[in-house]
Amino acid sequence: MSKVVIVGAGPGDPELITLKGLKYIEACDVIIYDKLTEKLIRYARPNCIKYFLADSEEEVTTIKRFIDYGYRLIVRLKNGDPYIFGRGAKLCKELMQEVGVECEVVPGVSAVNSVPAYAGIPLTFQGISNMITIVSAVTEGGRMFEFEKVPSEGTLVVLMAGKRLREVSKALMAKRSPLESVAIIERGTYEDQKVYITRLKDLGEFKPSSPSMLVLGDVVKLREFLWKVS
Amino acid sequence: MSKVVIVGAGPGDPELITLKGLKYIEACDVIIYDKLTEKLIRYARPNCIKYFLADSEEEVTTIKRFIDYGYRLIVRLKNGDPYIFGRGAKLCKELMQEVGVECEVVPGVSAVNSVPAYAGIPLTFQGISNMITIVSAVTEGGRMFEFEKVPSEGTLVVLMAGKRLREVSKALMAKRSPLESVAIIERGTYEDQKVYITRLKDLGEFKPSSPSMLVLGDVVKLREFLWKVS
Repeated sequence: MSKVVIVGAGPGDPELITLKGLKYIEACDVIIYDKLTEKLIRYARPNCIKYFLADSEEEVTTIKRFIDYGYRLIVRLKNGDPYIFGRGAKLCKELMQEVGVECEVVPGVSAVNSVPAYAGIPLTFQGISNMITIVSAVTEGGRMFEFEKVPSEGTLVVLMAGKRLREVSKALMAKRSPLESVAIIERGTYEDQKVYITRLKDLGEFKPSSPSMLVLGDVVKLREFLWKVS
Repeated sequence: MSKVVIVGAGPGDPELITLKGLKYIEACDVIIYDKLTEKLIRYARPNCIKYFLADSEEEVTTIKRFIDYGYRLIVRLKNGDPYIFGRGAKLCKELMQEVGVECEVVPGVSAVNSVPAYAGIPLTFQGISNMITIVSAVTEGGRMFEFEKVPSEGTLVVLMAGKRLREVSKALMAKRSPLESVAIIERGTYEDQKVYITRLKDLGEFKPSSPSMLVLGDVVKLREFLWKVS
C-alpha cells in the first residue's frame, strides 16, 4: 500500500522546513518537487527518486504513476503551506477520493507570515493592527480578485500581485487610503530578497520579479525598529 | 555581546519546529520557555539553562538579566509564529530599542494554518474561498474584538474565542449567516486535539478548553474529504 505525504516546504529559505517534513523527506522512496522547492531534495536518500514536476504536468497523473509502480512512500513538496493558496487541499482530496490512496498533509511555514518577518514586518501589533486579511491578486482563470471585498482596515497581505500592480493599486484605492503604506517584497526569504516601501497610490511604478507579495497597513512602518534580512 | 533569538515554536506538535529554530535551540546558552513550548527544551544542550517564564513575569526584564550575566545566545520560544498575535514584534522592538541588544526572529508554523490542517480544514479552496481573515476574539485590555469589521464572506479564523463563544456568536451573526458552518478546534495539533462542527447560531452551546480556535466558512465542509488527525 502506498502513502502520499504533501509536505509544506516553507518559503524560499530551506531552513524553514519543519522537523516533521524533514523526516518524511529523509524516509521517502519518491520525492516530487518543483522550482520553488528544489533546495530540499538534498535531504532525500541517494536511492530516492527525485522527480521534477514541470508547470504543465498533471500532478495527480504523475503521482498515480508512482503508486502504480508500487512505491510506498511518495512525498510531494509544496512551497509555503499546502492549505493557504497552495492547492494542496485539492490535491489531497483528489488523491483520497479519486485515486483512493492514503494522503497526509504536513503543514509548513507559510509565506504569509515568514516573508513579512524577514522584511521586518509583523502582521499584528498592539495598538496598530489586530486583524489580518490574505488574498491572492490572481484568482481562478487568471481573473483579478474583487478587492472591494477586503476590509477597510487592518493588515492586508496580497499574494501574486507582481505582474499587475497598476490594476491592484487602482482597485484597492476604492477601499483603502491612497496614502497607506505598502511593502513590496520580492523573492522573500530567498538570498536575493528585495523590499520596496511605497504608498498605495504609487504602487503601479514598481515591477517586482516573481514570487512577490504586498503588505498593506501601518505595520509596515514598524520595519524601522525590527530585525530584518534586507 | 549577547544575541536574542525569538523562535517560532509552531503549534502543539513539537515536530512542527523548523530546522532553523532547532539549530538555535541546540546551540543556545539560555532557553526561555512556557507551558505551550516546553516540549522543545529536550533539544537544548545539557548545560543550557532552561528557564520557565511564568505568565506573571516581565519578559524583557528576565531576558535583560541573562544578558547582564553575560550569556551569549539566548533563545525565547514563542508558540506558533511570533508575528501573528504572538507579541513577538513588541518583544523584538523593546529588545532592540530599549535594551540595545541584537535580536533575530525565526518565523514558525502558525496555529492559523496548522491547527485547521490537523482538523482536515484548508483555509482556501478553489470555488469555495479565496480570502482569509484572522482575528483574536480578545484584544487589548480584555475587550472583545469589534466583529463588525470582518468581511461578510471568505474564511474567518478566530483565535482565543473559547471562553466567550456566546458573545462571539451573537456579534458575528450581525455580519455572517447564522447557518454558516463553524469548526471549534480545541488544543489543535496536541495529542488530545478535539474538533466540534456546528453552525454559527449554535456556537454558544460549546465550552472548549484552551487553547481553542474557530474556523468559519464553507471550507469547514471539506473536512469530510481530507486527511485529519481526529
